[in-house]
Amino acid sequence: MPQLAENRYGKSRVRLVRVNRQAAIHEFEEWSIEVLLRGDFLSCFAEGDNSKILPTDTMKNTVYFLARKSSATCIEEFSKELIEYLLTHNPQISAAEVKIEEKSWQHLNTEGKSHPTTFVQAGSEVQTTRIIRKRGEDFQIESGLSDLVLMKTAGSAFEGYVHDPLTTLPEAKDRLFGTSLRASWTYLSNKLPFTAVRNSIRESLLTAFASHQSKSVQHTLYAMAECALAAAPQISEITLTMPNKHCLLVDLSRFGQDNPNHIFVPIDDPHGTIEARVCRGN
Amino acid sequence: MPQLAENRYGKSRVRLVRVNRQAAIHEFEEWSIEVLLRGDFLSCFAEGDNSKILPTDTMKNTVYFLARKSSATCIEEFSKELIEYLLTHNPQISAAEVKIEEKSWQHLNTEGKSHPTTFVQAGSEVQTTRIIRKRGEDFQIESGLSDLVLMKTAGSAFEGYVHDPLTTLPEAKDRLFGTSLRASWTYLSNKLPFTAVRNSIRESLLTAFASHQSKSVQHTLYAMAECALAAAPQISEITLTMPNKHCLLVDLSRFGQDNPNHIFVPIDDPHGTIEARVCRGN
Amino acid sequence: MPQLAENRYGKSRVRLVRVNRQAAIHEFEEWSIEVLLRGDFLSCFAEGDNSKILPTDTMKNTVYFLARKSSATCIEEFSKELIEYLLTHNPQISAAEVKIEEKSWQHLNTEGKSHPTTFVQAGSEVQTTRIIRKRGEDFQIESGLSDLVLMKTAGSAFEGYVHDPLTTLPEAKDRLFGTSLRASWTYLSNKLPFTAVRNSIRESLLTAFASHQSKSVQHTLYAMAECALAAAPQISEITLTMPNKHCLLVDLSRFGQDNPNHIFVPIDDPHGTIEARVCRGN
Amino acid sequence: MPQLAENRYGKSRVRLVRVNRQAAIHEFEEWSIEVLLRGDFLSCFAEGDNSKILPTDTMKNTVYFLARKSSATCIEEFSKELIEYLLTHNPQISAAEVKIEEKSWQHLNTEGKSHPTTFVQAGSEVQTTRIIRKRGEDFQIESGLSDLVLMKTAGSAFEGYVHDPLTTLPEAKDRLFGTSLRASWTYLSNKLPFTAVRNSIRESLLTAFASHQSKSVQHTLYAMAECALAAAPQISEITLTMPNKHCLLVDLSRFGQDNPNHIFVPIDDPHGTIEARVCRGN
Repeated sequence: MPQLAENRYGKSRVRLVRVNRQAAIHEFEEWSIEVLLRGDFLSCFAEGDNSKILPTDTMKNTVYFLARKSSATCIEEFSKELIEYLLTHNPQISAAEVKIEEKSWQHLNTEGKSHPTTFVQAGSEVQTTRIIRKRGEDFQIESGLSDLVLMKTAGSAFEGYVHDPLTTLPEAKDRLFGTSLRASWTYLSNKLPFTAVRNSIRESLLTAFASHQSKSVQHTLYAMAECALAAAPQISEITLTMPNKHCLLVDLSRFGQDNPNHIFVPIDDPHGTIEARVCRGN
Repeated sequence: MPQLAENRYGKSRVRLVRVNRQAAIHEFEEWSIEVLLRGDFLSCFAEGDNSKILPTDTMKNTVYFLARKSSATCIEEFSKELIEYLLTHNPQISAAEVKIEEKSWQHLNTEGKSHPTTFVQAGSEVQTTRIIRKRGEDFQIESGLSDLVLMKTAGSAFEGYVHDPLTTLPEAKDRLFGTSLRASWTYLSNKLPFTAVRNSIRESLLTAFASHQSKSVQHTLYAMAECALAAAPQISEITLTMPNKHCLLVDLSRFGQDNPNHIFVPIDDPHGTIEARVCRGN
Repeated sequence: MPQLAENRYGKSRVRLVRVNRQAAIHEFEEWSIEVLLRGDFLSCFAEGDNSKILPTDTMKNTVYFLARKSSATCIEEFSKELIEYLLTHNPQISAAEVKIEEKSWQHLNTEGKSHPTTFVQAGSEVQTTRIIRKRGEDFQIESGLSDLVLMKTAGSAFEGYVHDPLTTLPEAKDRLFGTSLRASWTYLSNKLPFTAVRNSIRESLLTAFASHQSKSVQHTLYAMAECALAAAPQISEITLTMPNKHCLLVDLSRFGQDNPNHIFVPIDDPHGTIEARVCRGN
Repeated sequence: MPQLAENRYGKSRVRLVRVNRQAAIHEFEEWSIEVLLRGDFLSCFAEGDNSKILPTDTMKNTVYFLARKSSATCIEEFSKELIEYLLTHNPQISAAEVKIEEKSWQHLNTEGKSHPTTFVQAGSEVQTTRIIRKRGEDFQIESGLSDLVLMKTAGSAFEGYVHDPLTTLPEAKDRLFGTSLRASWTYLSNKLPFTAVRNSIRESLLTAFASHQSKSVQHTLYAMAECALAAAPQISEITLTMPNKHCLLVDLSRFGQDNPNHIFVPIDDPHGTIEARVCRGN
């Protein structure tokens, strides 16, 4: 007999726009929400007994119903409300998980000032959260950001690495360093000014990236993590994923030209992948 | 016998990064370039005679070779240089066309100021140009922008339209109006301060979008075109494509809730498409 | 005064699944439909007068309403029905255009036979049509296919091309030839067994691609066009777009290895673009 | 002091085409490879000491170097060779991980037979493997497939689920059931005829999907897992992820029409997500 070792189900990509037009300066938020439930659903899987199944369509409705009533001012607070509702109303589930991605919308600048009711989508960057609660336990909150595309044109080297018979990469004292940053961090508490802490972490990551004298992607990643942990005592650890989005120096010597770090080819495939989780030490 | 009615060939998605590190404040540009050539290539098609074919690989090399030498300060000027080179060195071709898309990279703001050597990709917007020159004729220049994602949360209505037996759309005095703007315009001259004119057109389009009391997408599109033509006497016409990226008001009455333009579902499929070309009148 | 030189508007990406379960062997079709209308809409653009505007939402409803009643057996016939309906019910429009893309769904093969009610999406290939009718004129029908990804591992060379100081491409007697085929053709009549003609054209294109001794992409493209025109007397011309999706031979001599056309790197950027329109001659 | 809790780095999306032209019937394979290494790299992260870093560029070279020499006939065998090479030549690493995705290329059928040297890309489905080896331990092999897009037009119901005040989904005795299947399974041994086992699992999944009288996605998922475990005694467990790619029945009653499961709207957002891991029981 097969055994159902693990299962989860839910609704993905529930898209939500929330507009606040109470004040003269409007607010506009766009979220994509995923809800996942766990529980003892063996009879559903093995026998087709749906009596414990909350349809994923109802999860979607629940998102909109709660959004209307919610006073949450950030994705973390709304996730907690949604989880609370699901656990309270569905005794058959043992755990609920909510992930939210928020797109970057900003007030449009035009004629030298910020327009109160017009917005522009400002980059591919998204703010993220992933919150899980098992029945009878506390929230586990992991927030972050992703798709923040960055480039350093100075202060980046890569030298002194392993050379073996298959090495063809030239050492570089001064190279371009581009990445698409993904970060996630774990909060020490469930009641925090999440947006303020997020802003502080984000700013510390960017400042460290910009100012670091980089000897490798790893070296800069660690400096960024160190900075974020110092800036935000509310978090216990941070994980950074920094693909190395290569810009290759074009070999122009074939055409009798030099190329003093002037002309590059950006490539998508392949790319380096560097990832680390850094904890607060003792 | 079949007849070769039209043909063109070339290289697409030649990617180029140009870095200028002469001054303390670096410059970083990322372009994607397409080169297309036309000519009497019947013997190539019909007989496999390649003696007149400039390989597309060589076109790619030409892009990098010229980029190293070029003093062009914008995509229009570089396109012209590239076309000139191709027409001069390839007597067998009758016309050359170059398209360039430039990504939006900006200096990163951190610690309250712009960092001189760190950049962030600022949105999906691209600046575009498409230039064609037939041998013996002048350049035809069409520039533009695309993927500029905008949203109005006020000043947008849609009422008084045709009602027929298949109409289900409710009239709206006050709706969200989102779009992903594509614009292209035709210059009256080939020697212009292209970047300054581009900036002036872009700003006029944004200002008109933000301030317009919109009765329809068409109505706002036309106001934007009018504004751009007034702001930039250097152009003869402008074409705007403005998909209506719908945000649907969620029907919460099923759950006993009102929804005073607060909670919406953004959808990708289907979307409205509104397009017009507006010329300078007499 | 600005002048409205051209305008069109409509609904894009109206997605439709049509299931026929009349017989034991079901039919399953998935279409994406675009509707575009033209007319004298100046008052709408210039004054915000919507009295002549058929909402794009109603166009979407019209698609579903007609799909329910339609006995069309192919995308061309359904497009014609939709255009007829729109022109008949909307005297204010001067022309209607419909484009449809059909995805490739096939009955699933399992246990050695075709399953009557289970389907698998078979590749990225789509079948296309684009039909325009101006009021008082006849239908103009252009059908085609796109995203048909093909590869030849034999019978492809590229030699004897122009060599200039920027040439670095080695001549190749025997190379890989990959493409993502797009084709479109124009019918000589509006009443045809469209599906049968389409199948005949598609088969002739594939047979020619497979069997051709290719001296260049252009050479093979022309042979394919010639074959299609011979196979389908119902069409007047065919346009083929064949990007050269490069697979680059890896230089393994750096590691003391030969590479007799064995190990390649497929690349997406850049790619060659070869396009031609071939007509039936006299 | 921060602590480096975990780290891994490597190269992603190393693309490889392998052509075998030894026999009259050619073979064509396209793989995308990811290599990830783990080890004690603290000095690299904390101090910028690169002396233990094998550059990701060298990992890419290693892929091509080994591919030339390899006699591996499947992605599992090649992954094992690559891991062996990396562990043997890099004493500083503690574990190596390789993931490979293989695209679906098939010989083209034309003129009623399979062409020996022409291939067509047959769908979005990819075959996958992910193999990890810690130094001193054995290979852990997980293989699978993903992006296999399927549809049932009969034999699918969803009834008897939880109804709460937010329920709006109508019960369905007979609905469409579409999914994009992802599967992964764990082998009990490292030396197996991987391709034969894979084919047997894939066929059993498809047969179960097609023939199942489905009471829910969960119900069918479990039946498929059961079938795969029965068909392949070489695996210990299987994880299936089956998004519910909804096709919504269009409400045509607004237009006075019925809609007996004939006209649907396929939607991408949101979608259900159903996932389970099923083990071989005792």
